[in-house]
Amino acid sequence: MSHSTVTTVILAAGRSTRMKSSTPKALHQIAGRPMLGHVLATVGSLDNTRSVLVLAPGMDEVARYAKGVVANIDIAIQDKPLGTGHAVRSAEAFVPQGAGVVLVIFGDTPLVRAETLANMVAACRAEAPVVVLGFEARDPSAYGRLVLNADGSLARIVERKDATPEEIVITLCNGGAMAVRAEHLFRLLGRMTNDNASGEYYLTDVVEHARAEGLGCIVIRAPEEDIQGVNSRADLAAVEAEMQHRLRKRAMEGGVTLSDPETVYLSADTVFGQDVTVGQNVVFGPGVEVANNVTIKPFCHIEGARIEEGAQIGPFARIRPGSEIGRDVHIGNFVETKKAKIEAGAKVNHLSYIGDARVGAKANIGAGTITCNYDGFNKHFTDIGAGAFIGSNSSLVAPVKIGDGAYTGSGSVITKDVPADALAVERSKHFEKPGWAAAFRAKHAGMKKAGE
Amino acid sequence: MSHSTVTTVILAAGRSTRMKSSTPKALHQIAGRPMLGHVLATVGSLDNTRSVLVLAPGMDEVARYAKGVVANIDIAIQDKPLGTGHAVRSAEAFVPQGAGVVLVIFGDTPLVRAETLANMVAACRAEAPVVVLGFEARDPSAYGRLVLNADGSLARIVERKDATPEEIVITLCNGGAMAVRAEHLFRLLGRMTNDNASGEYYLTDVVEHARAEGLGCIVIRAPEEDIQGVNSRADLAAVEAEMQHRLRKRAMEGGVTLSDPETVYLSADTVFGQDVTVGQNVVFGPGVEVANNVTIKPFCHIEGARIEEGAQIGPFARIRPGSEIGRDVHIGNFVETKKAKIEAGAKVNHLSYIGDARVGAKANIGAGTITCNYDGFNKHFTDIGAGAFIGSNSSLVAPVKIGDGAYTGSGSVITKDVPADALAVERSKHFEKPGWAAAFRAKHAGMKKAGE
Amino acid sequence: MSHSTVTTVILAAGRSTRMKSSTPKALHQIAGRPMLGHVLATVGSLDNTRSVLVLAPGMDEVARYAKGVVANIDIAIQDKPLGTGHAVRSAEAFVPQGAGVVLVIFGDTPLVRAETLANMVAACRAEAPVVVLGFEARDPSAYGRLVLNADGSLARIVERKDATPEEIVITLCNGGAMAVRAEHLFRLLGRMTNDNASGEYYLTDVVEHARAEGLGCIVIRAPEEDIQGVNSRADLAAVEAEMQHRLRKRAMEGGVTLSDPETVYLSADTVFGQDVTVGQNVVFGPGVEVANNVTIKPFCHIEGARIEEGAQIGPFARIRPGSEIGRDVHIGNFVETKKAKIEAGAKVNHLSYIGDARVGAKANIGAGTITCNYDGFNKHFTDIGAGAFIGSNSSLVAPVKIGDGAYTGSGSVITKDVPADALAVERSKHFEKPGWAAAFRAKHAGMKKAGE
Repeated sequence: MSHSTVTTVILAAGRSTRMKSSTPKALHQIAGRPMLGHVLATVGSLDNTRSVLVLAPGMDEVARYAKGVVANIDIAIQDKPLGTGHAVRSAEAFVPQGAGVVLVIFGDTPLVRAETLANMVAACRAEAPVVVLGFEARDPSAYGRLVLNADGSLARIVERKDATPEEIVITLCNGGAMAVRAEHLFRLLGRMTNDNASGEYYLTDVVEHARAEGLGCIVIRAPEEDIQGVNSRADLAAVEAEMQHRLRKRAMEGGVTLSDPETVYLSADTVFGQDVTVGQNVVFGPGVEVANNVTIKPFCHIEGARIEEGAQIGPFARIRPGSEIGRDVHIGNFVETKKAKIEAGAKVNHLSYIGDARVGAKANIGAGTITCNYDGFNKHFTDIGAGAFIGSNSSLVAPVKIGDGAYTGSGSVITKDVPADALAVERSKHFEKPGWAAAFRAKHAGMKKAGE
Repeated sequence: MSHSTVTTVILAAGRSTRMKSSTPKALHQIAGRPMLGHVLATVGSLDNTRSVLVLAPGMDEVARYAKGVVANIDIAIQDKPLGTGHAVRSAEAFVPQGAGVVLVIFGDTPLVRAETLANMVAACRAEAPVVVLGFEARDPSAYGRLVLNADGSLARIVERKDATPEEIVITLCNGGAMAVRAEHLFRLLGRMTNDNASGEYYLTDVVEHARAEGLGCIVIRAPEEDIQGVNSRADLAAVEAEMQHRLRKRAMEGGVTLSDPETVYLSADTVFGQDVTVGQNVVFGPGVEVANNVTIKPFCHIEGARIEEGAQIGPFARIRPGSEIGRDVHIGNFVETKKAKIEAGAKVNHLSYIGDARVGAKANIGAGTITCNYDGFNKHFTDIGAGAFIGSNSSLVAPVKIGDGAYTGSGSVITKDVPADALAVERSKHFEKPGWAAAFRAKHAGMKKAGE
Repeated sequence: MSHSTVTTVILAAGRSTRMKSSTPKALHQIAGRPMLGHVLATVGSLDNTRSVLVLAPGMDEVARYAKGVVANIDIAIQDKPLGTGHAVRSAEAFVPQGAGVVLVIFGDTPLVRAETLANMVAACRAEAPVVVLGFEARDPSAYGRLVLNADGSLARIVERKDATPEEIVITLCNGGAMAVRAEHLFRLLGRMTNDNASGEYYLTDVVEHARAEGLGCIVIRAPEEDIQGVNSRADLAAVEAEMQHRLRKRAMEGGVTLSDPETVYLSADTVFGQDVTVGQNVVFGPGVEVANNVTIKPFCHIEGARIEEGAQIGPFARIRPGSEIGRDVHIGNFVETKKAKIEAGAKVNHLSYIGDARVGAKANIGAGTITCNYDGFNKHFTDIGAGAFIGSNSSLVAPVKIGDGAYTGSGSVITKDVPADALAVERSKHFEKPGWAAAFRAKHAGMKKAGE
């Protein structure tokens, strides 16, 4: 094992009673991805690192999720909730001893940046065997304080309730994450005691024991907003907000106009081309790619879709997974697409459901058209040819194929394939009763009078 | 009458020219309820209290609303707009003399909390016969100042324009509400004069006259945001925002995930279970109850509805009053329900209107289905049985009953009852004109050429 | 030429690489209008002014737009990007010499107010030949500083990188715009040199040369938010936000209730009556007029439309250009109107598309009704008479006329005119297969079993 190896221990065994949730905290979503997924992505971008995830017994759903994202992650189980120091010791079997750096991070602080962690690792290798993440708190009252020596190195971490009057005014606080050289970590952890009010073993004690051995400890700083942890639904909303802020900023820097950035919700994996315009109130679920010069009007909801150059979407469009929206396609109001390939220049402008379908290039889909893709048991495919014109309020009963250039009459239920360039209509005779409406109104007027 | 009785005098006679509205100010809505309704709810949560509402002549609509909420409320009419002191005197006939406490509050400050009023009443009984509501103002320039004695009691209230240089720097301001022992109130009010610039009688003069008699006056404080009054549409928006802030906080504390809390609008009476997730941009009108594990996706508008456990709603769903959405039901995009009972496990996924209807358990309603409930005079009922499958683009002409397990063909207009397990179709023959579309296009191309 | 004439030179030749856009910066939209349109509107409200727009070569699209707005605007071309001073010299041929005032403003600071510019012009005439726009910056580090003399006049403009320690703490900064008497401007500009790091000619040098000649220079101040320039998509969003803030404030002052003002998006030309209520999340595109007592519910998108007194719109309505929504009309959810005159008291409550149509007074349009206005080549008109009742899920194939008081049956495709007071139906026979659904289910259950 290389001296430069990093083992990241991700602590995620904590219960989250304040969330009032039966979903494990690590799996609550942020920007369309479970919180833990953000932490794994951040760790994954570091060089030469492998990870150990520390969970409590019974957190199988979290373990499964993590293994789905990082196949070779190790799962350590902390058998009892005896504190952060105890949690790290639970991972000991999975941590190569004697060389490299152990980076300890928290599964519920998903905003810590990869650069920060990389800086901590580099400092741990080059400057001091113990590196603690710190931040300047606007209101430090809820945090442990980092007490520095005159040379700027870290003297000790003071729990907020143990702070002296001199210490209580310190605003540099403990951000939780820690990098420790592997050769020292578990020896230092072995010196922890739990003679404190909560009877827990604190990871922060590492600093005290390192200092007692004469080992150097230093602080790497991050902005306070990166440290935000999640212990409640309100925290979750705050982390979501900061993540959205980052994603919106990145999009705008890349050449996207967001009419009101605060109302556009991105996923961590949303990809944009240049000169894209996104109106107010647009939600991007996971898996969306948007090419150059696309216009997305207000009130759209888009997931799992690719949108090609020059397309116009919305307002009030719902693009569901498996949609491929071609070049210069128009998708209008109250339109839903799902597993649908809409080819270049086609138009689906109003009140339609296009699911399990192909719409050929330059086809025009009339208002109110519905692909009847489901028979109660299976989904079937609708194939609409290039240049076809589907009349308004049509029902296309799949499986069905409309040939290139074919027309279908308004209001028709199309149950058989239509040849190219043909017209197909399903319609009855027009039937009229002259004066019926006048009589109907007279009858109701009479009934009303009689009932008075 | 008990010594502990409280009479609350609610001042709501003020005209609101800055609102530029023909609706009385007290009836402008906040969180789905008239402003006065919030005040009445707050007062209603106090013990042993009865209320007198002071209105100007002609405010019958406000009186009717108040009596609808609190049947035994007394209405006093202030015949002329001669100031707050005069307004309280207008209520004299309805206030039991000699015992108990009179609490005077303003109908246009709906954010004052019940705890604050209870504290004022308790202090009035136990500590001093006159209690004034105060707040620390970030910018005191628009408010009267509360001048305190060395012992912390209230010396006097100084109008902002009369403040001396020493007084002008005071940030403790008059919050309007006042509690006075009934035995003193009207005697003190009798000493008011109107020799001031506006020729009005000010309630605040009570403090001066009480002090002149040697009666104690004290201050009970509230946060500034609780004091926000409504004199303009901008004030109304500010009060709405603070009310929404309170309601969202309460929801999150109860275990609701709000993806972006600022974009979810609650009503004062919205009720949530646990592990509910609410996406961005959801509006809850009055009368909504949401059970555990419900997911409400972005862009929904919900009023007067009960949503059972595990249901999924939206995006782009409109749930109108009288909707009962059963357990595990799915309501999808561009769907409207109204007076509709959707039973467990049923699905209405796309582009449908379900009104005056029952949809049986596990029924599947195809895209574009419409219950034709109105004939121009009356509304009729549609009854859809359990496990029924309604084809896409169906029109169900009510009154009509679709039996359990029945199928209807896509695009059918169903005007008669369908037996259980039967298939019903209303459809004509498919008719085709080969080559018609090609000829139609050729003709138009020719017309275009000819017209060039 | 009158001494009082003002020539406004609008500098818009700058490239905008940070926008990452192929659209010229001046044409990016703010509140439904190109950025330059706001600047032209501001300048247009000044008295006795004519304008010269300075563009770079190839900016023909910008020139065309400007001439469309102000027919007699002059276009000057700055042949090379040699700085702001050079840009103004490029306009020299279009500026009357010797009399009047030249006002130089920037095309990318659209929030500067007309009052501010008028004050600059007045001060230039009455007080000093050179007037510079200044603002107090919260963070001055990015701006040139305005160094004042003891008498409050402007001594010089210091570029931020050239500021001395005494100058660096100055918070009064250069806002860009400048008014200079025409008799001096070009002489002073002739003295500029480009011996600086970027090799450009700076307009700000005018102050130094004016001072050297003993000419007076003064500062007119504006709030910092008025000075916001647009150099990136984030700046664009910031300017949009401030513009929306101004428009919302004006609307509320006029008697409009905005339930959550931050979520209502106005255009520069949106016009409101009194007692209008606008719910959350409503977007007004250009060209909308709303009369008194209109209610617009949440989630609406409205462009190019007139909405008469008492109408109710939404939620989830999309009103497109050419819509005239009459008195007391109801437009409900998932409804789109386009080039449609909806006359007094008519109702289009659900899931409809009404385009190229008239809907007569008190007509009722059933859910799911679609005007089939397009045949693939031309748009045709649908005329619906007063009091008509259009059954749900109807397709009205234009050109078609439904007479006053006529009824159409649900689900009908109407292809011929319907006389007044008649009933018209297009419908086939109801056809039933008893037990079919049970057999179908059994078959699928069997298939599933066989496939297991």
